[in-house]
Amino acid sequence: MRISRRGLIGAAGVAVGSPLAAWSSAMPASGSSAGSADVIIVGGGYSGMAAAHQLVRAGKSVIVLEARKRVGGRAFTQQVPGGGWVDNGAQWIGPAQTRILALAREFHVKTFPTYQTGKSILEYQGRRVEFSGLALEELLKVPIPPQDLAEFALAVDKFSRLAETVPSAAPWTAPNAAGWDSQTVATWMNANMKTAGARFLFTTAVNGYFSVEPADFSFLHFLFYVAAAGGFETLEENSLAWRFNGGVQQIPDAIAARLGDAVKLCSPVRCIDQTGSKVVVTTDNGQYEGSRVIIAMAPPMAARIDYQPILPASRDQYTQHLAMGSTIKAHAVYRTPFWRAQGLNGQILTQSPVNVTYDNSPPGGTPGILVAFFEGDPAREWADRPEAAIKAEILRTLVNYFGPRAARPEYYYQVVWANEEWSRGCYCGIPATGTWTEYKDALRTPVGRVHWAGTETSVEWAQYMEGAVASGQRAATEVEAEL
Amino acid sequence: MRISRRGLIGAAGVAVGSPLAAWSSAMPASGSSAGSADVIIVGGGYSGMAAAHQLVRAGKSVIVLEARKRVGGRAFTQQVPGGGWVDNGAQWIGPAQTRILALAREFHVKTFPTYQTGKSILEYQGRRVEFSGLALEELLKVPIPPQDLAEFALAVDKFSRLAETVPSAAPWTAPNAAGWDSQTVATWMNANMKTAGARFLFTTAVNGYFSVEPADFSFLHFLFYVAAAGGFETLEENSLAWRFNGGVQQIPDAIAARLGDAVKLCSPVRCIDQTGSKVVVTTDNGQYEGSRVIIAMAPPMAARIDYQPILPASRDQYTQHLAMGSTIKAHAVYRTPFWRAQGLNGQILTQSPVNVTYDNSPPGGTPGILVAFFEGDPAREWADRPEAAIKAEILRTLVNYFGPRAARPEYYYQVVWANEEWSRGCYCGIPATGTWTEYKDALRTPVGRVHWAGTETSVEWAQYMEGAVASGQRAATEVEAEL
Repeated sequence: MRISRRGLIGAAGVAVGSPLAAWSSAMPASGSSAGSADVIIVGGGYSGMAAAHQLVRAGKSVIVLEARKRVGGRAFTQQVPGGGWVDNGAQWIGPAQTRILALAREFHVKTFPTYQTGKSILEYQGRRVEFSGLALEELLKVPIPPQDLAEFALAVDKFSRLAETVPSAAPWTAPNAAGWDSQTVATWMNANMKTAGARFLFTTAVNGYFSVEPADFSFLHFLFYVAAAGGFETLEENSLAWRFNGGVQQIPDAIAARLGDAVKLCSPVRCIDQTGSKVVVTTDNGQYEGSRVIIAMAPPMAARIDYQPILPASRDQYTQHLAMGSTIKAHAVYRTPFWRAQGLNGQILTQSPVNVTYDNSPPGGTPGILVAFFEGDPAREWADRPEAAIKAEILRTLVNYFGPRAARPEYYYQVVWANEEWSRGCYCGIPATGTWTEYKDALRTPVGRVHWAGTETSVEWAQYMEGAVASGQRAATEVEAEL
Repeated sequence: MRISRRGLIGAAGVAVGSPLAAWSSAMPASGSSAGSADVIIVGGGYSGMAAAHQLVRAGKSVIVLEARKRVGGRAFTQQVPGGGWVDNGAQWIGPAQTRILALAREFHVKTFPTYQTGKSILEYQGRRVEFSGLALEELLKVPIPPQDLAEFALAVDKFSRLAETVPSAAPWTAPNAAGWDSQTVATWMNANMKTAGARFLFTTAVNGYFSVEPADFSFLHFLFYVAAAGGFETLEENSLAWRFNGGVQQIPDAIAARLGDAVKLCSPVRCIDQTGSKVVVTTDNGQYEGSRVIIAMAPPMAARIDYQPILPASRDQYTQHLAMGSTIKAHAVYRTPFWRAQGLNGQILTQSPVNVTYDNSPPGGTPGILVAFFEGDPAREWADRPEAAIKAEILRTLVNYFGPRAARPEYYYQVVWANEEWSRGCYCGIPATGTWTEYKDALRTPVGRVHWAGTETSVEWAQYMEGAVASGQRAATEVEAEL
């Protein structure tokens, strides 16, 4: 069986792996301390860096321990030689996401709108059309029967209204929480949509938002997710609206630059011991001590750390009920965005394994960049295959929809997130049925001197970078109150 | 927040904890080897010991690495001072479970039938009755309406027939696999049982078999479980039929005695590295080398080991979709089984948090032992509470059903399995919806030189000790073929 430890294969030639050193070789003798601070932050993604930034402003000392050799976590930007960049993980923001926009202003990172000019391609049951917008004459072109479209619209209206009854800070208190948490999204879909076209559209949306299948998770979580975004309308208006000019990793990079030596890369945390007067955090590169610890990681990954004393049952078992989604994300970089000249906006929506693409070019359109996704089941089916086979399938799809010029990109980037050692999936940890009502807020309840961040713990914009920032700031505020 | 690391509180006074040593203090320098063998087995429960036993018979050398200071894993026996024993975890076997019975014969461990003489107590919606057996005149006493009983019986008949269509070696190939895997057991229950009485009986059965709630897992897994037991009739005839005279831990203890120094206790495994010519297994107490490794652990716990190279996405993500059930199991030991004189068999079935008890006395009835369970949601709600509060609730329940003599046991034993560092739940890892159809056999597919045992990986009697033995023998056979 082939096991890839490389997160990226491309003409850029950068192997983004994890440090190869087995931890046993680098473990210091017990008792030696490699550093100490008021707060040790585990994880240098958006949530950890937002926490660090707030704490330093409040006059606290911090050390950020990051397993990878870069900060950013699931926000992972690479520069394209000659100009442009790719965001291999998280990439979109929107006008309602005020916390991350405030950070962007502070660090002089500009936003720009996602490219939308021109027609999208929709292929359904073998019929392909180009269409633009949601005007009636455009919808009539689409090879999905009108009654299927109508049923989908009714279902969207229905779950939007259900989501309004779910308080995102305590979804387990929603009027029908037990009923919704005991069923999968698939069960709700099948009960509310009888037509194949409606189910196709709904499943595609679920794949895009969650990177899992409707069978995999709780309908209550689906409603929570919508509620945490401020309702479905706000979700739609923001989830794909804008991007950061220069890439999403700029903000964690800028915070890291300010923190300087306080950021320790290549330092996976193995043990957190709060039995003594200080919390002792053991990494592959040494032990660090703090008065408080913030764990700013995806919960299924945080579960793999050894805690002393062990975590309470509620927290430990909560993390057992979350599983990371599955995404393969690839970028093909061309000299120009040649699809624009064909009147296309780079977006496809299809039933093929690579079911969604977008135009991910920088604002000026040079270079031209297409981004393509495997999401949910197709990502799972392809994740164990050779990286070259995945690349071939991506390029085959791009040629299929955008023509032969798509076959030979100048540069190519690809991340199989389930094979990333420090994420083991993307975008987020998604709770199984029963989790919200049975474990409630155990995911963000501090355990002694250990506090929890990470976008999964946020009650606003969970699963977005905005939620990561919110969770990091909330954890920082908790810690500030105790120091 | 109170975090208990003690698995047992009782008059016996034995604190069953985990070794306190942080691994960093005991880590040897890289390269030194504490031992080597043909096969390194990680986990000394039934599956690991069955694998070790078979391999040694085949002339292979083994080393068994066990995190606890005893073997047995979720099979955990303690002697009662003055006579008798308690099985704190797994305890029942049945006549169809041929593999474990063969081991019992080999090690001269005798079986005896579960005590069934006398009346059971059933309390439902505030009404309590004593009844015996399933004869019509007995059923008419029960405070569950006849139509509810009839609906339950029909539902049992229906899922029994559905289970016959599920091949336990490949449940994802069942005719309606996708449909069953996309719904929870609760969804199926609610669609097929409309009465409260039927749902009460069905939920109680699910709690007992799985230690989780119907909302928590896949209906396809429910059918797999029944199919793996050989069908519902065989399941019913065997699941509570017999016990081992002297306790279930005798067999792993006996195998360990034969293995002698090859069993390393207090040796939690932190890293498994198969990048070199031998597989190197790093524990808190040293590194071991083998040609092959068998991981014989509950899958959610196996996920917490660091693997180099990292595991394939299919295996890693499968383990993210399994969560351990929740059980609190307690024994109250009395001079005599005084309830027998009242015509009771020690069994209750109620809607209280402690919803099931049995007579767990040794064959002669001296001492008298009652075993009581919290299962599923009540176990979750109580797991983070003080051990003394849990004990008080258990004894309150026993007094409520068996009278004031139950208040003062001679000895008392209690294990909150979700707080056991090396299990974090019990009895088993249970897959969420979507898992079986999306990840198929990834839970038992070898990864290079690493093979997988554990009852969760068995296609026969999964979640039973019999399944553990079957999985260990299957893994041993795989390894034998390669050495």
